[in-house]
Order: sequence, then C-alpha cells, then structure tokens
Amino acid sequence: MSKKLTLGMFGFGVVGQGLYDIIKTKNLNLEIKKFVIKNADKKRSLPAELFTTDPAAILDDPEINTVVELIDDAEAAYQFTVTALKSGKNVVSANKKMIATHLEELTEIQQQTGTSLLYEGAVCGSIPIIRNLEEYYDNELLHSVSGIFNGSSNYILSKIFNENQSYDTALKKAQELGFAETDPTLDVGGYDPKYKLAIVASHAYGLYIKPDNILNIGIDKLDQQDIRFAKEKGYKLKLVPLAKEINNAQVVLYVLPKFIGKDNMLYNVENENNGVLVKAAFADEQFFYGKGAGGHPTGSAVLSDITALRYDYRYEYKKHLEAQELSYSTDYELNIYLRYEDDVLINKLNFSSISERYYADNFKYVIGKINLKHIITHLNDIKKDGVFIAEIA
Amino acid sequence: MSKKLTLGMFGFGVVGQGLYDIIKTKNLNLEIKKFVIKNADKKRSLPAELFTTDPAAILDDPEINTVVELIDDAEAAYQFTVTALKSGKNVVSANKKMIATHLEELTEIQQQTGTSLLYEGAVCGSIPIIRNLEEYYDNELLHSVSGIFNGSSNYILSKIFNENQSYDTALKKAQELGFAETDPTLDVGGYDPKYKLAIVASHAYGLYIKPDNILNIGIDKLDQQDIRFAKEKGYKLKLVPLAKEINNAQVVLYVLPKFIGKDNMLYNVENENNGVLVKAAFADEQFFYGKGAGGHPTGSAVLSDITALRYDYRYEYKKHLEAQELSYSTDYELNIYLRYEDDVLINKLNFSSISERYYADNFKYVIGKINLKHIITHLNDIKKDGVFIAEIA
Repeated sequence: MSKKLTLGMFGFGVVGQGLYDIIKTKNLNLEIKKFVIKNADKKRSLPAELFTTDPAAILDDPEINTVVELIDDAEAAYQFTVTALKSGKNVVSANKKMIATHLEELTEIQQQTGTSLLYEGAVCGSIPIIRNLEEYYDNELLHSVSGIFNGSSNYILSKIFNENQSYDTALKKAQELGFAETDPTLDVGGYDPKYKLAIVASHAYGLYIKPDNILNIGIDKLDQQDIRFAKEKGYKLKLVPLAKEINNAQVVLYVLPKFIGKDNMLYNVENENNGVLVKAAFADEQFFYGKGAGGHPTGSAVLSDITALRYDYRYEYKKHLEAQELSYSTDYELNIYLRYEDDVLINKLNFSSISERYYADNFKYVIGKINLKHIITHLNDIKKDGVFIAEIA
Repeated sequence: MSKKLTLGMFGFGVVGQGLYDIIKTKNLNLEIKKFVIKNADKKRSLPAELFTTDPAAILDDPEINTVVELIDDAEAAYQFTVTALKSGKNVVSANKKMIATHLEELTEIQQQTGTSLLYEGAVCGSIPIIRNLEEYYDNELLHSVSGIFNGSSNYILSKIFNENQSYDTALKKAQELGFAETDPTLDVGGYDPKYKLAIVASHAYGLYIKPDNILNIGIDKLDQQDIRFAKEKGYKLKLVPLAKEINNAQVVLYVLPKFIGKDNMLYNVENENNGVLVKAAFADEQFFYGKGAGGHPTGSAVLSDITALRYDYRYEYKKHLEAQELSYSTDYELNIYLRYEDDVLINKLNFSSISERYYADNFKYVIGKINLKHIITHLNDIKKDGVFIAEIA
C-alpha cells in the first residue's frame, strides 16, 4: 500500500540535515536523491554528489516523484513548486508566505494535475492543525480558530513578562536562537502569523483571503507602560491571530496583540511554543500545543507530510470547492486597549463605547469598543510612535 | 462530493438529543430517520413515530445508510455493529469497551465489506486523537502516547487535590454530574482508560492487544497518606495510561496512577477534561486538550465522524495491515511509589533498586524500580487493602 518516494530537496539547513539523518536511520521507504542549494562553496556534512545548484537536477529528473521545498525565498519557492506540480511531482513546503499568497492558484494546479501539495510545516510547526481543520472540523460547526502562531514573538513576550527583559534584549536572543526570521518585522509586526492565519482560514472555512487584505498589528510598539498595565491587571500579552465566524454567514480575520488572563489556555503557552484554540459547536474549546519555531518542529511536520504522500494523501479543499456561502467581513466590534498621546486619535477611531480612561503625564490609555473597519481605516495613525493597541478580554 | 446520509440511531440520551438538535439547525446534509430505544414507555421530546424498540427498523431499512450506536451495553452494541456493517451500512460508535474487545474482527469485517466504522467519540471525548494517530504520526516515528483518558477519575482527583474533598464525596459528585459510569470501578479502577489505551495502541502502533492482557491499576486505594506525600513533594496524582515503544521493536502498555510535577503538561488538566501527550521523533512533545466526559464532547466527536462519512472517510488501519515488526512486551522497568503494610510484599516484588524508604507507625512507603512483569505477577497482593501503587517521575 505504501509507495516508495524518491525525494529532491530545495535547501539544506537545520531541517534538511535533520530530515536526512532520520530518514537514514528509520525504515520509512524514502530516499533523498538530491539537494539543490544556493551556495556551492559552503562545506556540507554529506557526500558532495548529493548537492547541486541546478534546480533542473530535481525538476527534470523523472525518478524524483516528491519535491521538498525548504527555502526562505518565497518567489523562488513558488516557481519551483509550480514547475514541480505541473510535471506531476508532489510537493511538501513549509513556506507560509508562498502558500498564503498563491493558495488559490496552487489549489487549481493540484486539481488539474492530480498532484498533492502539503504544507503542515508552514503553520505552527509540529502541530497538525491544517489536517485537523481539513478533515475533522466541519465548517458549519466551527466557531473560531485562534492561538499563538508565531514562536519568535511569543518567545520575546515570555522573556519580557517572565524575566523582565527589555524588548531589544529579548529580540536579540530570539534571533541568536534561530527562532526569529532574518527580518524581525515579519515576526514582531505580525506578518508571519498573518500568513499562517490566511492558510488556516482556507482550511477552516474554505475562504481564500489575500494576506494584504487582513489586518495585522504586532508587538513592536509595546512599551513599559503597557507591560505595567498588564501586570497590574494580572494579564499577559500575546500576539493572537483570529479566524471567527459571525452571523452564520461571515468570517472575520485579524492579527492583534491581546491581553489575556489566567483562564485562557494561551496564558501558559510560553517561549517558542505554539498553541491553537479551536472552538466548535458541542465540543467547547479544544487546544493543540507543541513547539512552533525552530528546525526540528518544522522538520517533524515536513516529515509527516512526506510520509503521508506514500499513501497518496492530499488536501481535498472541500470547504473551498463545494458551494459555501461564507464571505469575508471586517465589520466586527472589538474590545480594545489603546495607549495614545494625541486625543485627536480617539475621536478619529470612533469608539462605540468607552469603559475605562486613564490620564497621567506620561501615560494615557482608553479601553472601549471599536469596529475593526475603523482600525483598518486609521491604521497609519495607529502605527505612529506613541501608540499601542491590543485586544482585551 | 458530499453524499446525503440517512441515519438510524441506537439510544437516545443526552448525546442523541444533542445530535438531533444540531442536525436540525445546521445545513449538514443529514437526516435522522429512526431511533431505536430500550424503554418504549419513557416520555420523549420528539415525535413518537421517530422511536421504536425494534432494531430491525434500522438494520433492515435499506434507506438508512449510516448507523449511530450510542448504547451502554457493549454486547448489544457489538451485535448491532456487526449486523449493520455486514449489510453494507457504515457505523459510528462511542463504545470503547466494544471496540477495544472486538477490534480485530471489526477491522476484518470492514475490509471484507468495504464499510467504515468510526469511533473517535470512544476515546477522549472531543479530542481527535484516533484520526491523528491514524493519519499523522508514522509508527516508526512515534515514541509514546499517554495522557488523561478518563474524565471521571480525573474529576475525582481534582476535587481531592484542589478542594480537599474526600474520595467518596468526590466520586458521588462525579456520578451526579454524569461523568462517572454506572459502575464506578470502570473509571476509578482504570478499566475505561484501558479500553481507550487498547484502541490508541492499535492506531498508534498497529498492535491489537486484548484489554485483558493489559495491566490496569486505578485510584480506588488512594488514601490520606498518599495525598499528603504528593502535596509535600509538589506532585499531583493523575491516572495515566501509557503506550510506549521500546528498543525500536516492542510496545509497552499499562494504566497506572502517576505522581507528576508542574513541568508535565498533564499537571494542569483538571476536572473532567482530557489531555493526550504524543512524543514523536523531532517534534518533542505534542499535547491535545479538550473536554473528555459528558454528553456534549462525545456528541461532538460522534458528529465529526458522521460528517466525515459524507466523504467516505475510513480508517485504513495501515499500521496494522502492513507488515510491521512491533510486538507487545511487559518487560519494562518502572519507577514506583508503593505504600504497603506487610514487608513480605517488598521482597516478592523484586525491586531492582530502591531509592527511598519511609517507616512510621501508620505509614510505610518505598520508592524504587520494579519490572512491569513483576507487578503483573503479584497483582493480587498489590490489590489488597493497605497497598497503593503509583508511577513516580
């Protein structure tokens, strides 16, 4: 029943090396035939004949039936993926930006060619959330999916809240440990979790929303006043993407920092770990937890995808392909904490109600309800220095 | 792609009523045609023509393509399930004892008839652990599966440890809330989690082990001395089933109470909640959490199984059906806490090492390493009054 896979891999970093090691020692009916790398001069730990800089060595080799794509460059990853799928090869990728940006086209190519593109490793490392959304949770019954999708910013927030480190020290440490992307804005600005959220939304609700159309606000404006506020109230701050069905007809998507209390399952998700909260009719809350960032958790998910291809596993995208009436909405009221300097912003944002205001010489905040669409309209003002916005329970 | 299901249900309790309500309000392409019940005289909340006491009304109706079995009686459930599968109907069941006891035969019947038997609701309520073991975790890469599989005994332990309730008070409360089985021994004696463990082992490792051949020791002998011991050391006690691969060749299975510390993900699983810890190569530890006991969580899993049947989902049992060399073993060394009265037991149990001993007038315990096979051999002595045994980290 299981078929033998011959693999070609783009990229050879921590994940590639780890995959090679484990495939060698375990009886998995897999063989890695070729690695395509960018830098031919780098010293490699494996025999030289395994490596080449020529993509054709994988893409044009009919013996290679499975392509594993583990490179940073989303544009190159996209080209390799499309070419491989069109020539009948299955692909495993962990590139969330590439998947999120091109998912509609990639779904069509899979349908046309009968190939399979798997990307569990692109969302929340080793946690099998895509599979579970795809297979287990009917969209009619799914109330919301949220969580901690970005190990790097969560690591930084843990260091700040639990060890009183400064934002800059914590960020530097995250980069040293290899949790943070080369450009930290991707993590701390909420772009990385937004890509993942777009992928989650497609498997949760069958909705394909371009990342550019989803609001993301990160933790990069967090300062000592916000941290003091949180500690006084018994909150922790987490960066939380949300996909939520409203009115049985629409889906809201956004990424915002969120103050959460002890009763929230995400409260104890610390450091580079990820957690996903699924609320479904009948089941209340379900929680999936595991390591999110770093080579090994991603490698674990990539390996699970590879082994699933031996049994011809494919996402069916049934929530997308079957008729469904859910549409994307940004008309949704949020409870918001806003630290600000200039009162003009408060008027602009059009709070529908205000429950708490605080003024001091060096610290002003307001808590109240704002519609998501007003936040989107005034995003430039919100992203100015001196302003920090977060959801609050 | 989705096909319409016409359902016949055996049993109409909390789960049946809840399923009916949700199927009515949601657009799921499902219809419940008939309920078969035991007691014709009970007042029902639905029209009388939906109910009958005659199993043939479901089993002989060719329009009914899906049977949902939600009755307590494992023997009757087995008969209905076999008859339904053999007549080409798919079956959803939440009866762990029935599944665990007859899994080998039920697998064969599914293979022969091309039908599908799903039972996610039989293990850990709403947590989709069977699916994930079946689809996501290759047996070559799976180190262990453990967790809290029994909401009722976990509820009792939470009340004892967090609210200083007595064992008897806590048990009574669990029964009032409907978490505990009619016969509490099934829960507190560790039989219920053992059935679930046998099912988990089959989907994790492809091993079909009869429940009678798996050791289960429960929490029914717990007393004040053990609780004081745990609190002094900063432990909580949990009832923990374990399936673990050893030597790349064998699988160990048992259910034992276990003292665990704060660093264990199961430490914070309280009350009727369930949690499953999966250790896999590369991924470290993954944790699944959700409500375990009660009608709604089970109903949620049953409903997910029903909706999956619209897409012809079936367990492939590939870990069992494909050649695999794992065998069942009871030769495994455990670190054990043993409260005892008679020193003779210590000699009988053949500790390979002892790390801690305590004597007082009314309390004697020893901590040390014992082989699982010695525990099994001397089970009658261990189950005597005055003795409590638990794993300790």
